[in-house]
Amino acid sequence: MTERAIVLLSGGLDSATTLAIARTSGFDCFALSVAYGQRHAAEVDAAAIVAKALGAREHRVMRVDLAGIGGSALTDPAIAVPEAPTTGIPVTYVPARNTMMLALALGWAEVLGARDIFIGVNFVDYSGYPDCRPEFIAAFEQLAARATKAGVEGKPCRIHAPLIEWSKARIIQEGVRLGIDYAMTVSCYQADEQGRACGRCDSCRIRRAGFEAAGIADPTRYRPS
Amino acid sequence: MTERAIVLLSGGLDSATTLAIARTSGFDCFALSVAYGQRHAAEVDAAAIVAKALGAREHRVMRVDLAGIGGSALTDPAIAVPEAPTTGIPVTYVPARNTMMLALALGWAEVLGARDIFIGVNFVDYSGYPDCRPEFIAAFEQLAARATKAGVEGKPCRIHAPLIEWSKARIIQEGVRLGIDYAMTVSCYQADEQGRACGRCDSCRIRRAGFEAAGIADPTRYRPS
Repeated sequence: MTERAIVLLSGGLDSATTLAIARTSGFDCFALSVAYGQRHAAEVDAAAIVAKALGAREHRVMRVDLAGIGGSALTDPAIAVPEAPTTGIPVTYVPARNTMMLALALGWAEVLGARDIFIGVNFVDYSGYPDCRPEFIAAFEQLAARATKAGVEGKPCRIHAPLIEWSKARIIQEGVRLGIDYAMTVSCYQADEQGRACGRCDSCRIRRAGFEAAGIADPTRYRPS
Repeated sequence: MTERAIVLLSGGLDSATTLAIARTSGFDCFALSVAYGQRHAAEVDAAAIVAKALGAREHRVMRVDLAGIGGSALTDPAIAVPEAPTTGIPVTYVPARNTMMLALALGWAEVLGARDIFIGVNFVDYSGYPDCRPEFIAAFEQLAARATKAGVEGKPCRIHAPLIEWSKARIIQEGVRLGIDYAMTVSCYQADEQGRACGRCDSCRIRRAGFEAAGIADPTRYRPS
């Protein structure tokens, strides 16, 4: 029987590439999107398209109301998304976001009998978020082994972060090699309802520079400025 | 300034006692309830009453739709709550529940600048859930130190589980000493809309035995059978 895996899928470039890698590795993939704030309608729509295009068996969207706690430009409309580089951990950081998303993935993995969870975090061309670092992923794997019935029974989950040490250019080159059409992905922190990118936020800047460095034409749909 | 703490509050006996302990320890308490399935309306109502009665500054309810993944008698109406003792990890186990609840607490803690999270898990008179064990709590604390901006900046969260090694009788005795009226708490896995307990599920049985062992009259409101 083909092994099942949960793949966290935001609708962005990194998680789409991660899904393609999981499929290429032979996993039967169950894609999970977590809608945790207001600025996400376009991303979740993109995730549904990506899940289908890249052969996920199922795609589920779980809703968690992080807007109630605020604290991030991605969940609190009162905090603006920066359109120029900043130093330190930026205001787009969502407190404990990856911990929460991996926890939900872990729950679904246990229900499905899956022992593998894929997440598209990246430590190189990234925005300085603490929960994108290798030590965070390792700590979550340690936790997972103690948190679940499967873990206690000697079948702990593996957390795969295949892009964690890749440059954005390498991610894009690998994704193109695997046949991904990145036009369907949405990375922008403030995409419009049609999924068109602003071209100015941190995420847009990193993505655009990645296509340039990869020597691949940027297929991103930008909105008129 | 008084230190802030997040207290996970289900509306049951253990978490109410944990809130009273956190208050007695001098913390300014922010109570967080997580509504993750259908069988919880009465518990969340109870949590709001408990939060107010025990002096929490704020009480928030975060909704997470775990019913979408199923796999537990507490989230899937198709799985019956057992009314007789079972062996092993029971069907009321909710996959990755405490991981998810602690993740949400960690996010709110970071927004509030709180460095302390209280959770009422218990390892003695409990139902055999893996995420109620000391090694799970320790692993989450390790994770938290790597997951957040505060952790990276050398101010990691402490996870307090003051009841973890207490018998149910000791929990009740301590709670009564701190002035808790346990009539307002709801522990039952299948309470009715008025918060009246079934008296037959695992949680009811453990609770009733606790009052007996403590030599304290059981104030639980049971529904007519």
